[in-house]
Amino acid sequence: MAVNKRLNHLLKTGNRDQLRVFLKTLHPADIAAAITRLRPEDILFVLETISNTRSVEVFSNLEKDTQKACIAFTDPERILHYFEGLSADDRVDLFRILPTEDKEQLLGLLANSEREDLLRLSRFEEDTAGAVMTTEFFSLPPDCTASEAMERIRSGSHDAETVYVLYIADSGGKLRGVVSLKDLVMAAPDTRLDRIMNPNVITVTVDEDVEEVARKIARYDLLALPVVNANKELRGIITVDDVLDIVEDEATEDIYALAGVGAPLELEYLNAGVFQIWRQRIPWLLLLVLSGFAAGFVIEFFKGQLGRYIELIFFMPLLMGSGGNAGTQASTVVIRAIATGELTPSLFPGVLWKEMRVGLLVGLSMGLLSAARAFFLPQNSSAPHYQIALTGGLTMFFMVTVAKCTGSMLPLLFQKLNLDPALMSNPLI
Amino acid sequence: MAVNKRLNHLLKTGNRDQLRVFLKTLHPADIAAAITRLRPEDILFVLETISNTRSVEVFSNLEKDTQKACIAFTDPERILHYFEGLSADDRVDLFRILPTEDKEQLLGLLANSEREDLLRLSRFEEDTAGAVMTTEFFSLPPDCTASEAMERIRSGSHDAETVYVLYIADSGGKLRGVVSLKDLVMAAPDTRLDRIMNPNVITVTVDEDVEEVARKIARYDLLALPVVNANKELRGIITVDDVLDIVEDEATEDIYALAGVGAPLELEYLNAGVFQIWRQRIPWLLLLVLSGFAAGFVIEFFKGQLGRYIELIFFMPLLMGSGGNAGTQASTVVIRAIATGELTPSLFPGVLWKEMRVGLLVGLSMGLLSAARAFFLPQNSSAPHYQIALTGGLTMFFMVTVAKCTGSMLPLLFQKLNLDPALMSNPLI
Repeated sequence: MAVNKRLNHLLKTGNRDQLRVFLKTLHPADIAAAITRLRPEDILFVLETISNTRSVEVFSNLEKDTQKACIAFTDPERILHYFEGLSADDRVDLFRILPTEDKEQLLGLLANSEREDLLRLSRFEEDTAGAVMTTEFFSLPPDCTASEAMERIRSGSHDAETVYVLYIADSGGKLRGVVSLKDLVMAAPDTRLDRIMNPNVITVTVDEDVEEVARKIARYDLLALPVVNANKELRGIITVDDVLDIVEDEATEDIYALAGVGAPLELEYLNAGVFQIWRQRIPWLLLLVLSGFAAGFVIEFFKGQLGRYIELIFFMPLLMGSGGNAGTQASTVVIRAIATGELTPSLFPGVLWKEMRVGLLVGLSMGLLSAARAFFLPQNSSAPHYQIALTGGLTMFFMVTVAKCTGSMLPLLFQKLNLDPALMSNPLI
Repeated sequence: MAVNKRLNHLLKTGNRDQLRVFLKTLHPADIAAAITRLRPEDILFVLETISNTRSVEVFSNLEKDTQKACIAFTDPERILHYFEGLSADDRVDLFRILPTEDKEQLLGLLANSEREDLLRLSRFEEDTAGAVMTTEFFSLPPDCTASEAMERIRSGSHDAETVYVLYIADSGGKLRGVVSLKDLVMAAPDTRLDRIMNPNVITVTVDEDVEEVARKIARYDLLALPVVNANKELRGIITVDDVLDIVEDEATEDIYALAGVGAPLELEYLNAGVFQIWRQRIPWLLLLVLSGFAAGFVIEFFKGQLGRYIELIFFMPLLMGSGGNAGTQASTVVIRAIATGELTPSLFPGVLWKEMRVGLLVGLSMGLLSAARAFFLPQNSSAPHYQIALTGGLTMFFMVTVAKCTGSMLPLLFQKLNLDPALMSNPLI
């Protein structure tokens, strides 16, 4: 916060020298965080105040929509400078959200090979390994020696996103093995890489889901995961720091879906317009209104019945709410267990059996409580207390038990049908 | 799945040689995943079938509660073997959940220094940096040269969790800087480490929250984050692979809290008993029943009023549901933005202003729809259509607008009061 305040003060006074001195003390990621909500002209002023190398680092740490706003505001030379400073995966992320004219301008600025790289990567479907991978990796032939490999790293003549994992590919481009920098350091200088490489490489294919990427990186504790095509040719890598962001984004998606918010916006919350947020949220609310109308019809239909035990009108919101809550609990736990990879289709019977028993137990507790409460309701109708209590308690019991089973089974059913289980939002149950 | 089937078959036939051959083809993490739900005696049988080094790797990849069950089932010698194979942070995680008698047995088995290390780490409060850090890191004096450092790595005489980040500490133990293995490889052999180290080290203190740890690792793209005490002495490190697990766990916690499930169990879902799940879920349900009773009282109170516009009974579930849904959307987005570090207390006014406008917009849409629906309700009372429509529409409008503002402000209020915003579970709104 102190950083933001000082920065705003320096921007207002426009003292470039003091600003430069102040910015020198900050980490590029911190500068980015401090300026990401400023006006594009101010952001560009800050970027131009710091050294070229650092300005590129700061730019690559900005939110995508801030980058987009800056691109729209500056000259071609600086656009190229900032864009070329991004890693291949960040370039594609930014390119995707640019308006058509900015896209065309940018493609015109880029060198042929870079343009092709960008277009190729941008054709991968969103949320696939191909769409998030970077093409900047270290690949060496099998007959390269450890000392030659070390020389390549020392020369700095590469733009690999990590030098801690080196990939061995044969002349046809097929991935043959992986060597860590640690293995390299510990090997005798004249050892061939194919003698020290691990040939059992964990890989993903370009079209695999990013959730699978996150699962593999987490399970095997990898620093980077190689992405191959159908011919086992190495096409790119995904590093663990990108996976951290992916895990956060996927969790946000799941949480939004569970709460019926709708898909996360491309923008950060504070940068999103009121109309955009309205468009994001209103579909679910309308859908829920429709299901509310349906519930209304049911009540309309039973108006006569309700007359018999008019005391139970007290119970209506309780029954509807408890059923929903109980179902939500079960579905949330199951959806999360699917997302983290714990539950797979083959385990369905076990889940149903467990939720049935939990449901009976929970239903019994809730039913007894409801019956007790119903027994002491002020009597308005001629029905005896115990009948009202029995009706209230039994309804609660069945409602909760059924909700637990349905709530746990629906996400698994969605999973079997290859739909996103999180789509089965709580509010719908 | 095929792996599980083959494994079960081999275990049933009890053919140890075939089992050994089969297990050799698998990654330790995959073996762990395949056996984690077997009976402890079968897990131990598998562990004893593979080589000592690999069995330790497999054991460290098992779920904590599976490890606990194995400890209870085997002899002291093997307990010590498996336990010493764990990294310091995993040791503490397991130690925490052991029953008292197993804890005491284990402490008796360990060497003095290991026992002290374990006890010291286990005293840190849960969910703090100190509780998740490992004490196995690479620390070197400032006057050490690059070639000496490389020699230390090559010798393998260390148990550091990562060799890619080396820490420079002075004779008093104070952290002075950080050197990456990449810097080391690129440096001239006789360079002193304090000449190539980065003195601006990003650190956390032992008592900082794990969410802060995750935020720093993600923001600065670190492979490891050093943990220091109040005197800036290096006490441990947290590696990025552990942070991946932390991010997953924190997301699960948030999702559970939002859905009113209760705190995540220490166990995996499939290993948890029915009673444990019941205990986890029933408190929230009971709390919600109480708030349901309260809603019931309100309805009871307005029974007379309802008589006037009896048509609007149709609207009751709809109004209550929509208010809840609208509030949930706002609170979910705000809670998530707090969790990912986007929202801080200073931004409260902006959030309120935004949600007020979104609320008006959403409320207007929902209100108009409700009014239209209410207008065409079958008339039961003497009130004219437009009055019923107006009442229905206005109630919906106010309900939704207020819910949006309350929903967004409550989590921020919780944050200001230093309570976990996710505690303000949806169902309560």
